[in-house]
Amino acid sequence: MKALRFDGRLQLSQDAPVKQLEGEALVEVLYAGICNTDLEIVKGYAGFQGILGHEFVGRVVEAEESSWVGSRVVGEINVGCNQCSLCLSGDARHCLKRTVLGIKQRDGAFAEYLSLPIRNLRPIPAAIANEDAVFIEPLAAACQILAQVKIHPGMTVAVIGDGKLAQLIVRALASTKCDLTIIGKHQNKLDLMSGLAGQVIQFTANENSLQEIFRQLGNSRFDLVIEASGSFSGLPMAIPLVKPCGAIVLKSTYNGSSSLDLTQVAVNEIQIIGSRCGRFDSAIELLANNRIEVRSLISDMIELDEGLHAFEAATAPQSLKVLLRMPAAS
Amino acid sequence: MKALRFDGRLQLSQDAPVKQLEGEALVEVLYAGICNTDLEIVKGYAGFQGILGHEFVGRVVEAEESSWVGSRVVGEINVGCNQCSLCLSGDARHCLKRTVLGIKQRDGAFAEYLSLPIRNLRPIPAAIANEDAVFIEPLAAACQILAQVKIHPGMTVAVIGDGKLAQLIVRALASTKCDLTIIGKHQNKLDLMSGLAGQVIQFTANENSLQEIFRQLGNSRFDLVIEASGSFSGLPMAIPLVKPCGAIVLKSTYNGSSSLDLTQVAVNEIQIIGSRCGRFDSAIELLANNRIEVRSLISDMIELDEGLHAFEAATAPQSLKVLLRMPAAS
Repeated sequence: MKALRFDGRLQLSQDAPVKQLEGEALVEVLYAGICNTDLEIVKGYAGFQGILGHEFVGRVVEAEESSWVGSRVVGEINVGCNQCSLCLSGDARHCLKRTVLGIKQRDGAFAEYLSLPIRNLRPIPAAIANEDAVFIEPLAAACQILAQVKIHPGMTVAVIGDGKLAQLIVRALASTKCDLTIIGKHQNKLDLMSGLAGQVIQFTANENSLQEIFRQLGNSRFDLVIEASGSFSGLPMAIPLVKPCGAIVLKSTYNGSSSLDLTQVAVNEIQIIGSRCGRFDSAIELLANNRIEVRSLISDMIELDEGLHAFEAATAPQSLKVLLRMPAAS
Repeated sequence: MKALRFDGRLQLSQDAPVKQLEGEALVEVLYAGICNTDLEIVKGYAGFQGILGHEFVGRVVEAEESSWVGSRVVGEINVGCNQCSLCLSGDARHCLKRTVLGIKQRDGAFAEYLSLPIRNLRPIPAAIANEDAVFIEPLAAACQILAQVKIHPGMTVAVIGDGKLAQLIVRALASTKCDLTIIGKHQNKLDLMSGLAGQVIQFTANENSLQEIFRQLGNSRFDLVIEASGSFSGLPMAIPLVKPCGAIVLKSTYNGSSSLDLTQVAVNEIQIIGSRCGRFDSAIELLANNRIEVRSLISDMIELDEGLHAFEAATAPQSLKVLLRMPAAS
């Protein structure tokens, strides 16, 4: 099958073997989305080698439980050992022995077929089109913030970032009636969210970014700051923006270390809350009931055959979600 | 009066003016303790200039409310504006306009006299000797952890550090019946706490420290890690030691930035909880009821006249709490 592999360099394989792992379902992929994590893996993040991709919608073509065959599905990306206490409680996201689709010791979704256990699959209601369903995984990651932090109406919340994940986070937060400020660099991306926030702040990336932001804010600070910039520059910006005893949700993962002064975290008793994958249920519900719109985030839809070009397109500063269309969807 | 000042360099002044600020009490200092923050200020932390010192016990010698004169007292170090909502709620610790005794825009306790508002003073029961009372401020900072994190019996907790603050934290945690591990570098300091912990791990500071610790731990990880090493090397050590979805309490403040990879904080959904000053009530109660022992932490008791020597003594690797004895206590 065709597949986008990373083995130190990104390449399109024409004859990757179709692998259905023992006891797992074989899923024919329809669409897959390129995430910032994929771009970071290509820079060396997570040390992954294999077929990339973890955001997808597909159709089950083989499974022991034959009732699943033909179902349109998305998939939880963490495959746990199914034996530890975390897995047995139904949450494999932090299983220490987990593999992760397209990220850790498991081939991913940028291919014609992928393998996942049935317990990882979620059937998609007919109300959700393929082009929306592919957002369920990242939207669940956005909704995870709401599972971790109690956000009450009127609470002042800032989102740093205007990229793919930040866009979904803002859409998920809009339902909470919090007092939302979006802080980002790209006018075209900020415009997509301006109706959802009380305040939108654009800044230029340089050594005076923070002063530029504070000048527009009038020195007010936030109860909660969501760091979703995808860059190491986001957290040093988030720390001075949060109130004493406030919280920062850390969403960004990237390749490398950065120089950080955490003194103000101790002195101001700030909490930094790491946040990763979420449960799919809330994301499916939001999309099935048309409570949020994601289609406008698709900046390119590119055939798997042109996968290398799709990665290039995804790194362009103005780009948002680049979808790969698989042969089965054409 | 005699006072230990820092103005870019530490010096003993023989004729510093006695200043009683308007509306405040004048306190004759009896004993004062040298804290790691004082050592960091001398390295440039917080940009402070003036009389150092914020841990003390003293006696009120002048005050508008004459009933306070003669009282033996300790003092909350944060002096708020007394007008903002934080101050009016009785908690000036995070007032944005606060001054801080010996740390921020307010002369401190390494002197014969200091000035503080009556609302910052706490009378000390006769049951607490001067040499114990001087630990109330740092012990309150240790107890603040218990106010921020619910620690239940059997919870696995590691304290990184064996210095002055770590010693008090371990003493405060011992009452919680948690499953406590202490991780430190100095055998003599670890020995002082060995009866309070289920497990004591000594390591050598080098690039293999973490492997050395994991070898002794048998790869187990903790629900909660308290980072009280006072050094930038503590947090990068704490992150791999905590379980997924666990928490790190960040107690250390130091001068400078460090290179940090926070990817695992996001991926493992770890919480980092900044922690600083605490309420004095629990600390006073612990000491008044002899529920914890602190006297063994005094490694030197040095006259104010020998203050420069006291700072030298406090920087020695084997040193714990160095107390300055003021002329009024002699």
